[in-house]
Amino acid sequence: MKSIESRTANMSTPIFCGPVNRVVVVGGTHGNEMSGVCLAKYWLQDSSELCRETFTAEPVLANPLAVERCVRYIDTDLNRCFSSELLSGPDSEKDPYEVKLAREIFQKYGSKQSSCDFVFDLHNTTSNMGATLILPTVDDPLEMHMANYLQSNCVDDSIPCHVFVCELPGKDTPYLQNIGKHCLSLELGPQAHGIIRADTLRRMRELVNCSLNFLDLYNQGKEFPSFEIDVCRVKFHVDYPRGSDGELQGFIHTQLQDKDYHPLQPGRPIFQTLHGEELCYDGEKTIYPTFVNEGAYYEKNVAFIAMEKLHCTVPALKVQR
Amino acid sequence: MKSIESRTANMSTPIFCGPVNRVVVVGGTHGNEMSGVCLAKYWLQDSSELCRETFTAEPVLANPLAVERCVRYIDTDLNRCFSSELLSGPDSEKDPYEVKLAREIFQKYGSKQSSCDFVFDLHNTTSNMGATLILPTVDDPLEMHMANYLQSNCVDDSIPCHVFVCELPGKDTPYLQNIGKHCLSLELGPQAHGIIRADTLRRMRELVNCSLNFLDLYNQGKEFPSFEIDVCRVKFHVDYPRGSDGELQGFIHTQLQDKDYHPLQPGRPIFQTLHGEELCYDGEKTIYPTFVNEGAYYEKNVAFIAMEKLHCTVPALKVQR
Repeated sequence: MKSIESRTANMSTPIFCGPVNRVVVVGGTHGNEMSGVCLAKYWLQDSSELCRETFTAEPVLANPLAVERCVRYIDTDLNRCFSSELLSGPDSEKDPYEVKLAREIFQKYGSKQSSCDFVFDLHNTTSNMGATLILPTVDDPLEMHMANYLQSNCVDDSIPCHVFVCELPGKDTPYLQNIGKHCLSLELGPQAHGIIRADTLRRMRELVNCSLNFLDLYNQGKEFPSFEIDVCRVKFHVDYPRGSDGELQGFIHTQLQDKDYHPLQPGRPIFQTLHGEELCYDGEKTIYPTFVNEGAYYEKNVAFIAMEKLHCTVPALKVQR
Repeated sequence: MKSIESRTANMSTPIFCGPVNRVVVVGGTHGNEMSGVCLAKYWLQDSSELCRETFTAEPVLANPLAVERCVRYIDTDLNRCFSSELLSGPDSEKDPYEVKLAREIFQKYGSKQSSCDFVFDLHNTTSNMGATLILPTVDDPLEMHMANYLQSNCVDDSIPCHVFVCELPGKDTPYLQNIGKHCLSLELGPQAHGIIRADTLRRMRELVNCSLNFLDLYNQGKEFPSFEIDVCRVKFHVDYPRGSDGELQGFIHTQLQDKDYHPLQPGRPIFQTLHGEELCYDGEKTIYPTFVNEGAYYEKNVAFIAMEKLHCTVPALKVQR
């Protein structure tokens, strides 16, 4: 699906995938990302909103202790604990809290006996990323059709949908979304961690509902036609300028702040310092920065994530009976 | 100074105050409010920017441990530890980290032997409060003249200055600004805690510099003429709707979000819930909400602070030789 050429022959013949029976909607993977925390808590009290004709999605509050303390995590980032290596490692009392938690969650929702068909993971970002739909690859037709369905059927120009592909070929990825056969992570921002913005909360809620509608139509046998779509794919991470002691020597330039998904040309400023210096992007190709000035990524040495644009043609899709 | 009537007789005769010799600029009172943290760290390496003809301001990083961990505080809010009661309490090993810290800071900058003449305390807020100049009262002519000077000489329409008076008559206030004879707290937002926005940082820096220019002119004998000014004064705090277990039952209404300093009429919506309900302001007078949806105030049971408008006439000011 990565280029038009490789797929044009079969575009009108649908790809058949299995039905989606077990659906999980996870909030609170990070305890201070409040849209997902609020929605998961609400649905745990009354999940009727998650019922569809062909399934009922299960709400999950992933990290209750981090939620209680309103912090991202207790010992380590839960959303970096779902690699095969960590999940299959030997249990030890000394394991960080979130490693133990990841194994419990995987046991319940991701292991062979219980594997869920679709997992939603709900996040917020301090970056101006609108409604970002994060997919692990462009190779899963069900996920790609869902993203396309949301872009067409869940329109809000003030919080627009972007498709963010975090493809790490051959890598043992550490994300919670690994617990499902298919997945979509929602990343809504800008919202400061620890606060609830009504507009962001409403948008996340309608995106989840619209996604569930899509899965229900899919299960019921609706055929979704072939389409073309532009997505952004991760190219590389860019760290802040730092001194030898790791201290920040600069910060995001005003011209880059809030410009997630805007093209950044070579030579344009990306950082500035209190001494009045500007640091410019010295790459050779135009990139599309995302997660610009995400608060939780300072400690991960990520000032922004550089993306490339990719045009995909996705074949028609129908459920396998 | 609280009403035009009470002061009109003497408006043109200047009030004489003492010179300002020792000036302290404090960042990192809250370890994740990054504008002040960045500036204090920068000035601790090179304080030449804080030199004026008549004084040199001292930079202070108030809570280095909280800064290192990028959290608001370690045990308790440092900016609630400067009440006379806490400062004069008997030392105990069991005291919270910040109580010990407050006593150290007070010893160094606020006690009789070392008392500083002017203290700046640099803060950020997740609320849309622009450049808020916080004064303890309207009764200090030096502070009022500084606020007026900033409003006239440090104009930036994208981050406008507001004067916020937190007058708590007869109360033993717990704020760090108590260490100075005179004080100004700067509260700039919106900025998520833990992140550095270049625009906010630049604005805070220019406000501090402009304030130091004012103090220098004042020390040099410039007479500042009488003026009139509108300020906002704290009326009451409003908490979120909560269940009997303390859990939030609602959040700031979209119509109130980002509307700090806008008039809020009786009957207008202030909260909404996931059930679709709206809760309205049931007071009788128009108020001016501030700190709307401040992240650090969820735990303080403050959804916003209701202010009233106050028109003040301030007499001329000159240094006492």
